[in-house]
Amino acid sequence: MKKEIDLVHCSLAFLLLLPAPLFGQSAAIQAVREYREAHEAEIVGELVGFLGLPNVADDLDAIRENAQALAGMLRRRGIEPALLETGGAPYVYGERKVAGAERTVLFYAHYDGQPVDVERWVGHRPFQPVLRDKSLEAGGRRVDLPAAGKFDPDWRLYARSAADDKAPIIALLAGLDALAAAGLEPTVNLKFLFEGDEEAGSPHLAEVVDAHAELLHADLVVAADGPSDPSGLPTLYFGARGIVSVQITVYGPLRPLHSGHYGNWAPNPALRLAQLLASMKDPESGKVLIADFYDGMRGLSDFERQALEAAPDDDAEQLRAFGLAEPEATGKRLALINEPSLNVRGLRSGWVGAEARTIVPDLAVADLDLRLVKGIDPREQVARLVAHVRGQGFEVVKEEPDLETRLRHPRLARIVSSDGYPAFRTSMDLAISRAIITAVEENSGRTAVKLPTLGGSVPLYVFTDVLEVPTIGIPIVNHDNNQHGPNENLRLGHLWSGIEVLVAAMLLD
Amino acid sequence: MKKEIDLVHCSLAFLLLLPAPLFGQSAAIQAVREYREAHEAEIVGELVGFLGLPNVADDLDAIRENAQALAGMLRRRGIEPALLETGGAPYVYGERKVAGAERTVLFYAHYDGQPVDVERWVGHRPFQPVLRDKSLEAGGRRVDLPAAGKFDPDWRLYARSAADDKAPIIALLAGLDALAAAGLEPTVNLKFLFEGDEEAGSPHLAEVVDAHAELLHADLVVAADGPSDPSGLPTLYFGARGIVSVQITVYGPLRPLHSGHYGNWAPNPALRLAQLLASMKDPESGKVLIADFYDGMRGLSDFERQALEAAPDDDAEQLRAFGLAEPEATGKRLALINEPSLNVRGLRSGWVGAEARTIVPDLAVADLDLRLVKGIDPREQVARLVAHVRGQGFEVVKEEPDLETRLRHPRLARIVSSDGYPAFRTSMDLAISRAIITAVEENSGRTAVKLPTLGGSVPLYVFTDVLEVPTIGIPIVNHDNNQHGPNENLRLGHLWSGIEVLVAAMLLD
Repeated sequence: MKKEIDLVHCSLAFLLLLPAPLFGQSAAIQAVREYREAHEAEIVGELVGFLGLPNVADDLDAIRENAQALAGMLRRRGIEPALLETGGAPYVYGERKVAGAERTVLFYAHYDGQPVDVERWVGHRPFQPVLRDKSLEAGGRRVDLPAAGKFDPDWRLYARSAADDKAPIIALLAGLDALAAAGLEPTVNLKFLFEGDEEAGSPHLAEVVDAHAELLHADLVVAADGPSDPSGLPTLYFGARGIVSVQITVYGPLRPLHSGHYGNWAPNPALRLAQLLASMKDPESGKVLIADFYDGMRGLSDFERQALEAAPDDDAEQLRAFGLAEPEATGKRLALINEPSLNVRGLRSGWVGAEARTIVPDLAVADLDLRLVKGIDPREQVARLVAHVRGQGFEVVKEEPDLETRLRHPRLARIVSSDGYPAFRTSMDLAISRAIITAVEENSGRTAVKLPTLGGSVPLYVFTDVLEVPTIGIPIVNHDNNQHGPNENLRLGHLWSGIEVLVAAMLLD
Repeated sequence: MKKEIDLVHCSLAFLLLLPAPLFGQSAAIQAVREYREAHEAEIVGELVGFLGLPNVADDLDAIRENAQALAGMLRRRGIEPALLETGGAPYVYGERKVAGAERTVLFYAHYDGQPVDVERWVGHRPFQPVLRDKSLEAGGRRVDLPAAGKFDPDWRLYARSAADDKAPIIALLAGLDALAAAGLEPTVNLKFLFEGDEEAGSPHLAEVVDAHAELLHADLVVAADGPSDPSGLPTLYFGARGIVSVQITVYGPLRPLHSGHYGNWAPNPALRLAQLLASMKDPESGKVLIADFYDGMRGLSDFERQALEAAPDDDAEQLRAFGLAEPEATGKRLALINEPSLNVRGLRSGWVGAEARTIVPDLAVADLDLRLVKGIDPREQVARLVAHVRGQGFEVVKEEPDLETRLRHPRLARIVSSDGYPAFRTSMDLAISRAIITAVEENSGRTAVKLPTLGGSVPLYVFTDVLEVPTIGIPIVNHDNNQHGPNENLRLGHLWSGIEVLVAAMLLD
């Protein structure tokens, strides 16, 4: 709470933009809370069952099992599910018409999860959910899953997708149950669209939206993906960065060579790759040195800039939690994510540690992801990177080079990129944007953190650019959920407040 | 042969240093050749049996089986073996006194092999030897092992240690058999010392030599490790580089972080490591940029420099074989290996390829090996590297850093180094050096390639510096043996000529 007060104190301009003073939850949200308090074991139980289904995007059989389970969960709420087929993972769709409602909100989330590195999960397998009394990092110990009663909100449920993105799906469904139990109706028609290959880059989302434009049409899309603000305040994001991933392979000798006999004669691809990567970013400022990398960035409106300034700043606390002495670049984290980024997510060459052997490696590979902001196209950004690599003296190829190509080019790199997708942004100044801010703040009784851009990527450009519907994100899970890494987890207190905030979005004035 | 003629033409100075004109093998060597031609299946069979014993240095049980097998092989030649125990891998020792011989030559080789990455071996497991009609790279196909008869000298035997270092051991034993069959005696007393953890850095060699100084005393040590010159000429090396390995770990956040939410805010250890490695070597000249890296190097005598100049230069051919457009640095390969080197042998951070996930890695690791020349101490070279890393703004620690250390230092690296060992060099101008050159060249009837330094590392400083015995190397295996990498192999023709050249060293005048 301290943060919220600081925040109000520190920006008078922001204060003027606030809706009516906030005095506590609405009666509807109070009813939702009472329902949840009486049904915590049931809600967690449904999530645990769902998390037991492996859901890595490239295992289509497993994904289909998830889709069937999810369809059953909708059907049990009286929503007739439809599987929208794509040739890949099916989309699970459902809708509820509300008598007298004039507007429609489509809720989007994804039910697939990131790949798993089983060995780095502590104490259990990623699809065997485990409850702990606090986070692993805080020394959390295993807790048996209670069959009934209240759960400590600080308990954490560990499993792949516990946070990203199965928790929001369960929160939406629990919200429907809570409204029904209280005899309340949403104020808008509801549509639900759950995706099965978001972590694979949403290869079919544009196609599905195009094919089912009428079915999916809405006045607002609410995406429930992503982590909420570390402050614990309700969080709304009006944009998200796009992404494109790039793999760079630098070639050395055709096979690993003895480092003694050939060690300062045969070119070393690991070192060449290091030199290439080092050329891409300024070590002091953290700025990307690729020419034109920031060109075309769309700026923020005054309102958006003020909202960003008003957003809580707990960078110091987060640095501490992550064991970091200082950030890579100067500036507030939430401001920095309004810029495109270049991230080295993986390096491989030769062998290290117990497996190390004294060789000049044959290859060195770096995997990068480039985050994009509004105004920067994925292909354009990759082209800038390729031009930079060429500028460093490398011949750049797309395919595995043949012997002749190797013999012709002293510096040779293969660059392969994903299709990627662009950023999206919905203006905070639209009437529907103001309406959702009001609904969330008035119902929850709390000031929301309102971000022009989320740091992560969700392919919501499809809704804004293809379906042409304003789109915002309402993420609910804890920021320290180890999303995409080992030991992904959900803090239960975030699930509880998430139910409330997503219901609030169903109560648009 | 063309190379040999070129070589004589191009250096009159060198010609004057040659022994008497060379007109062909000595009668003794002719007898050895006849014996071998009649016993090829037997010789290869003994090697195949030996290669079937896994011999990675850290598997002590397996190593001990190798030692027992080797002891049996000596015993079958009438040499009573002794296992010199070390607490680690045992040394296998044997000797043969020759009536009237005044000098003693100790032959050294190692019976352990490098670790194996089974998945990168093509078509068989590394300890399941396979014969091919030529090299894999040349499209070699599998050949059944003949039970008798002549073998094509271009055939290759694939297995871990086929070249490094079991082939020379078999060559020495076959040489003894050949001399015995011809009723010939060596001109010197023979001692044999076979090591079992050379690939682990010979942690016990100094201790064994110290404990058994009298037993091991000799007038000359001949080491049979390493690849022979690509020209196919007999090769003598009078020194070898030392080595020390270094592991550098650069720290990022305590755990992998989502690259979208934290991607241009949390420092990226993979990029920091790349920047650090890039700072260590000039991309154009290939020179190491660590301060004082070349300081203390002992120079070459005129004779040594001339021998180096006279050595065949097939760099162009080797570049082609390895698919390289040009070397890292300008200069002849055999000259460059008279300098210390810095080699990045492995990189690991995050995940790549199908396993890639969109995270900021928690760690980035580089494994390096530093090759040393005479006059440069392993610890001193590591200290220079550590000073360089500090100079790049890193706090350098030896242990896994605690949270407080992480929070205090924006750039933090852990550096762990092996003990390593120094280079050795025996002057080519010693009488015993001249005698061995004469014995090899006159008996084989061929000009030898004489190298002041071998590029690879063998811990022979123990013989020159601890035992104080002049030491030279007579490597026999093909240079393209994939030593230390997957698909290690021995060209049989090199085993045949190796038997002859090692017997020549037993026939010192």
